[in-house]
Amino acid sequence: MPELRKDPVVGRWVIISTERARRPTDFHRDPVRAHGDSCVFCEGNEDKTPPEILAGRGDTPPNGPGWSFRVVPNKFPALRIEGDLEPTGEGLFDRMNGVGAHEVVIETPNHHGSLATMSVDEVADVLIAFRDRLSDLKKDPRFEYVLVFKNHGEAAGASLEHPHSQLIATPIIPIMVTEELTGSAQYYGMKERCVWCDILRQERRGGRRAIVEAGGFVALAPFAPRFPFETWILPAVHRAAFEESGADELRGLAGLLGDFFRRMNRVLGDPPFNFMLHTAPLHDSELESFHWHLEVIPKLTSVAGFEWGSGFFINPMPPEDAAEALRADQS
Amino acid sequence: MPELRKDPVVGRWVIISTERARRPTDFHRDPVRAHGDSCVFCEGNEDKTPPEILAGRGDTPPNGPGWSFRVVPNKFPALRIEGDLEPTGEGLFDRMNGVGAHEVVIETPNHHGSLATMSVDEVADVLIAFRDRLSDLKKDPRFEYVLVFKNHGEAAGASLEHPHSQLIATPIIPIMVTEELTGSAQYYGMKERCVWCDILRQERRGGRRAIVEAGGFVALAPFAPRFPFETWILPAVHRAAFEESGADELRGLAGLLGDFFRRMNRVLGDPPFNFMLHTAPLHDSELESFHWHLEVIPKLTSVAGFEWGSGFFINPMPPEDAAEALRADQS
Repeated sequence: MPELRKDPVVGRWVIISTERARRPTDFHRDPVRAHGDSCVFCEGNEDKTPPEILAGRGDTPPNGPGWSFRVVPNKFPALRIEGDLEPTGEGLFDRMNGVGAHEVVIETPNHHGSLATMSVDEVADVLIAFRDRLSDLKKDPRFEYVLVFKNHGEAAGASLEHPHSQLIATPIIPIMVTEELTGSAQYYGMKERCVWCDILRQERRGGRRAIVEAGGFVALAPFAPRFPFETWILPAVHRAAFEESGADELRGLAGLLGDFFRRMNRVLGDPPFNFMLHTAPLHDSELESFHWHLEVIPKLTSVAGFEWGSGFFINPMPPEDAAEALRADQS
Repeated sequence: MPELRKDPVVGRWVIISTERARRPTDFHRDPVRAHGDSCVFCEGNEDKTPPEILAGRGDTPPNGPGWSFRVVPNKFPALRIEGDLEPTGEGLFDRMNGVGAHEVVIETPNHHGSLATMSVDEVADVLIAFRDRLSDLKKDPRFEYVLVFKNHGEAAGASLEHPHSQLIATPIIPIMVTEELTGSAQYYGMKERCVWCDILRQERRGGRRAIVEAGGFVALAPFAPRFPFETWILPAVHRAAFEESGADELRGLAGLLGDFFRRMNRVLGDPPFNFMLHTAPLHDSELESFHWHLEVIPKLTSVAGFEWGSGFFINPMPPEDAAEALRADQS
């Protein structure tokens, strides 16, 4: 059983994923990954994943070919779906069972597809799948949060090439989300306005860090980005919880996402990247102070000792210049 | 001039290092680094670095050959030594000038040396150089903190192969140090004891996460490590500020460090790694609640979307197993 352990000084929880435990020699170098014919996410290989939870299908039977997207449990989950938390102590330390859900969204049967090349409808179906899984996982009272994220490219941590994203449901709200919720609530306490709405107002007016706006969504370079070309995508009007989005809204987001990823790929040459969805906690979806957003991080620089030791990021790319390059792209 | 910018939601400062600004195409792939004969840190190439601030020399003149270690300003500093902070706003955003110091400690003239192979006296000289630079930078009233860190190996962010570490002095206390200070102060407020001293007491008694103890220092695997084989090295008795260490203490640390790095290299096959020194803020060196420590992170796994989006780390290696492997090593 994986374990959740809490650092007694800073309160940071980590997942000790004991089921993936390895011997020291296993770390000597990165494993080589299988691609191509042996891809477990390609059509025809449905028996190589656990049975699907959700899929885009006409009248094809589950767990066989004939799908546009599939959601399956991760075969090597970081957290386990069975069991209770059973918090215990060990002297001054705190631990609990690593209970959670870990799912994979296979975005397309096309091994060489991507969110930049899929049709708006295909991308919208993936976003609707995110929404529907969030809504479903919300019914499990053990879960407080679901993080939707994507690792694209080996340098961004992907272990498989086939286009996919992931969801991890956790029994506690992740510390980075808590920090955003706390900061947002403090701002709201002072101003009675959503800080994200205020940022949107200022950035849409000022324009130097705005990248593109369409379909009710805005892509912008944040004022204090950790990484070169870091981009945030937000609904133009106040929305706290992603899973409250209507299908039409998500179609608007799909259009903007495709546009943004095509710009990013042209300007940066198809970089490896991560994205992470920050939405309100599962049981706090009506927040006036919080505004959901998608953070996109192209993997262009390495994170080293200064960043790990300080939490202070050195970014060689002013966001105004990054936004200008992405905005100007007319290909 | 580099800029410090603050995220308006979470209060995280970043350094926009405009002097290193690059065009989008510069990110297309990592630059290739020069090694060997052209190494700017090797003996005989002293004119390729800015003039030295401190060096281990007999009676050789500065900035020429005949040294055991050198401290020089970073030729491409993340922060600039000249100027004042001049905080300004831009609507709801905050910024100030990127004022600070960025120095490099060239640890040995031997291009292929390392802290694992240098003599105890040579390592002690490097640690004393850290201490003396901290004490000197403390005199500059603009600085609140100095982070000492090391990037070893390209995968850990090193851009040069020659053994070196770095210091960055910042006008604000880094957020990760603030989190440790806050957590430590809360614990002290409840218990009137240093949480780090309590951890040491528990771990030295329990033993499952202790790695090695010698010369007044303890190396242990933390209870909730973010990374496989993450190791903390702490003075066995309470010490808040590294720069208050006597030369004898640092000689004790040098002995333990060499032993630890030799174990790490044997067990993990000379991994790339980072270390970061967490010491008390420059102007708060008498803290009863804080205990300085060195965090060592071998670079064995990649950090991906889940970690970047949640602050929650998935670690496949239980610290008890990591400690056992490092402790058992008898080579």
